[in-house]
Amino acid sequence: MSVITIERKVLEKNDALARKNRDRLREHGIFAINIVSSPGSGKTTLVERTLEVLKDALAIAVVEGDVQTDLDARRVAAYGVPTVQLLTNGGCHLEANLVADALAGIELPGLELLIIENVGNLVCPANYDLGEALKVVVLSITEGDDKPLKYPAMFRNASVLVVNKLDLLPYLKCDVDTLVANALAINPQLKVFRVSATSGEGVGAWCAWLRESVVRHKKESLA
Amino acid sequence: MSVITIERKVLEKNDALARKNRDRLREHGIFAINIVSSPGSGKTTLVERTLEVLKDALAIAVVEGDVQTDLDARRVAAYGVPTVQLLTNGGCHLEANLVADALAGIELPGLELLIIENVGNLVCPANYDLGEALKVVVLSITEGDDKPLKYPAMFRNASVLVVNKLDLLPYLKCDVDTLVANALAINPQLKVFRVSATSGEGVGAWCAWLRESVVRHKKESLA
Repeated sequence: MSVITIERKVLEKNDALARKNRDRLREHGIFAINIVSSPGSGKTTLVERTLEVLKDALAIAVVEGDVQTDLDARRVAAYGVPTVQLLTNGGCHLEANLVADALAGIELPGLELLIIENVGNLVCPANYDLGEALKVVVLSITEGDDKPLKYPAMFRNASVLVVNKLDLLPYLKCDVDTLVANALAINPQLKVFRVSATSGEGVGAWCAWLRESVVRHKKESLA
Repeated sequence: MSVITIERKVLEKNDALARKNRDRLREHGIFAINIVSSPGSGKTTLVERTLEVLKDALAIAVVEGDVQTDLDARRVAAYGVPTVQLLTNGGCHLEANLVADALAGIELPGLELLIIENVGNLVCPANYDLGEALKVVVLSITEGDDKPLKYPAMFRNASVLVVNKLDLLPYLKCDVDTLVANALAINPQLKVFRVSATSGEGVGAWCAWLRESVVRHKKESLA
């Protein structure tokens, strides 16, 4: 039995559990997003800004995935939304069984938006379906405009790209148009938002899209 | 046969190949460093600045590890040093067998410093010995001062921390002293350099240390 076969079995088992998660979420009409990125791209800050804008308009819960520490969950829980911390204890990505455990600890009826923040890793989480409606890849412009070409799987498997830290543009050599063009060359279907989670620039458009998506997903799920 | 067992076998096989690489490098008195970090922390720019300073003083070769593209190898090869591109084709870290392949393509007699730039990933490369003398973890201050606590294995397994992008400090909320304290809490033995690979600040001290390490390593290897 080769390692490749084992890996395929791990992925098949994960995909089966992800389908169960997806069915449970659909049953309740909950729109779930899986936010993926490198470490330090600003995922948690984006979640904080999103909660500031949407927490009174939508029923939101957050699942925080980390290798170690509950620092992010504490930041998010301060906004008063149900928050579950998942620790991988060295593992490089979230898997569907961990998310199933998290769902067991969240009151699903009435929930509208589930935000899953994955481990900071631009490679491994690309291959693991968690049962989300779609993957959102966050890329900080400090990482450079070549990253979609160098880490293509994540951009291929995501539906949305959030280009973050636009406030730092005057101090960097990064060309945002090139970055976006590189991402679209990998995946022409990507919906792109340009934001600064720190200054708030562009967060309104992102939140408006999230809100529309929640409504659309609920209609489709409960139809 | 469990996946855990398979993973241990993969690591054991890797470690055996890494020992072979280490023996070959020691036989020629070559100091090898394995540079690890998140995507976009500035590893390649640090390698470029290092080559500018040291390429006439030391015989250097570079191994560039990437998931996809030869963009980094082309940047480095422009400095006129022997450069080998290793592509993992989706894999999230370099392994010792790939580095063995690279060594087969490099003229080892006379070489003094081998720089291995790993795939951008702050999790998985921590566990894979390539046969290097030591691991150098690069952390950009744009990633935030909490990262050593959130991704501890990499900081535990590294001997050197290069804190990069200091030129951006005036525009960030990052506290560099806190970042370094967090890293030293994980690994008190870490040797720390604070640099901006873009402006050149601190690169002199890093290169001086590299040069001393090459001399010391050659004496110890050939003793």
